[in-house]
Amino acid sequence: MPPAKVSQHQRRGYIVPVGGAEDKDSNPTILERFVERSGGEHARIAVIPTASRLDDTGSRYEHIFQQLGASHARSLEYHRREDADRGEWLSYLKEATGIFLTGGNQLRISTVLGGTDVARAIRTANASGTTVGGTSAGAAILSEHMIAFGASGSTPRAGMASLAPGFGLTNKVIIDQHFRQRDRIGRLLAALAFNPFAIGIGLDEDTGAFIDAEDVLEVVGSGCITVVDLGGLEHSSMDMADEGDAICMTGIKMHLLDNGSRYDLKSRTAHPSAHR
Amino acid sequence: MPPAKVSQHQRRGYIVPVGGAEDKDSNPTILERFVERSGGEHARIAVIPTASRLDDTGSRYEHIFQQLGASHARSLEYHRREDADRGEWLSYLKEATGIFLTGGNQLRISTVLGGTDVARAIRTANASGTTVGGTSAGAAILSEHMIAFGASGSTPRAGMASLAPGFGLTNKVIIDQHFRQRDRIGRLLAALAFNPFAIGIGLDEDTGAFIDAEDVLEVVGSGCITVVDLGGLEHSSMDMADEGDAICMTGIKMHLLDNGSRYDLKSRTAHPSAHR
Repeated sequence: MPPAKVSQHQRRGYIVPVGGAEDKDSNPTILERFVERSGGEHARIAVIPTASRLDDTGSRYEHIFQQLGASHARSLEYHRREDADRGEWLSYLKEATGIFLTGGNQLRISTVLGGTDVARAIRTANASGTTVGGTSAGAAILSEHMIAFGASGSTPRAGMASLAPGFGLTNKVIIDQHFRQRDRIGRLLAALAFNPFAIGIGLDEDTGAFIDAEDVLEVVGSGCITVVDLGGLEHSSMDMADEGDAICMTGIKMHLLDNGSRYDLKSRTAHPSAHR
Repeated sequence: MPPAKVSQHQRRGYIVPVGGAEDKDSNPTILERFVERSGGEHARIAVIPTASRLDDTGSRYEHIFQQLGASHARSLEYHRREDADRGEWLSYLKEATGIFLTGGNQLRISTVLGGTDVARAIRTANASGTTVGGTSAGAAILSEHMIAFGASGSTPRAGMASLAPGFGLTNKVIIDQHFRQRDRIGRLLAALAFNPFAIGIGLDEDTGAFIDAEDVLEVVGSGCITVVDLGGLEHSSMDMADEGDAICMTGIKMHLLDNGSRYDLKSRTAHPSAHR
């Protein structure tokens, strides 16, 4: 489904994919910025730990967000589809100024929450101004097309990336995480090769993208974001590739952006930090 | 030093970097093509096993090239600098129609042969039409600027690649090998970031580039060649990066080319296999 419609008098909230393993202790710049973009001391943050199999993931983020100055932070423990019907949780979610999805397995999020009132509430909230972010699996789920799973390596091969529908807050990007750490440039390229309309966003660990209402992305954190733009694609062998074949593509454009750099997803232009 | 001058009535020989681990048994397309480009049944191939620490590397290639139809193949066992003075070996080298450098450590080749009559003979031979190739370390040494060693990973970081002077058969490219297998896109980008004039050629294993006298490269083998072109570089943080810092660059162009694809190093244009 296309991104939820933003009505005329509203601005979409920030969309904040984070590459996983963000600093939570000594230098938590990404989570700090998330609280700030969610209203700072007035922030009411809903944590969704659905992706995780650990019992304390949600409560850990509750604590962190409170430490970072949010007035409220609460983990909504959606672990089964019937949890989506809990009215009181849904009310909290709808009144939140920030929604944060933890790491784990993105297919758990889509399996448990896909098609429920919770997914609808998240889309509607973002469209009406609520900041929505997530780390690792929680980042992947944010976009229309998410990488469900795939193989490591730097050469894209047919069958290397499996896509699944995500929450659809944006259809401009396909997101990958733990990017450098898990050697995922091949699978991001393979995911984009299916249909080169989207822009690939490869997030290193401890690195987040703050995408504003104008679709300008700012890099925050200690790593890089690799932006892959197939807008100028000249040739792709994807349509002829058998499972496992290397995909041949020409005319790939790539930008490596560090903390403070911006990328305009509409005009497809990079603005490095040093030049601002 | 710049590439040896090709005189007016001569054509430079092929330059053939191979990404390592080329098939030597069931489907030796690269080595077959090397023999063919060296004169086929008239080929006289000099093998230079200097990079290797194994005793039988040279004799193994002697055998392979003979099996593939070369009329002569001989390993010249240059292992110490004084070996470069052996007149009879030098004569064989000068009369060879193909010269092949084995894998191992490229710094051994440059340390043992750099500045000797052997290095000069290889340059002169290539300039006057002799095919010169090499695999892995033997590929790295072919260009003017070679990657001596470096770190793995997909994000380029300052200090990740150390350059050293190679044989200088071409200054158009910087070559990296075992490209996908050892996750080297970061180090190739870091090597190019020093001075973006050269084109990066990342060779997967069992994949070779046959670069003709017109500087058109053809991909041969089962993997990919990743061509990285910084000709359109918009910004680089390389000048400000401290050791270990991620290098931020925008405007990188990249092509992933498979068997049969060509890339024109002069016009910087890709010609995928399916389009020829």
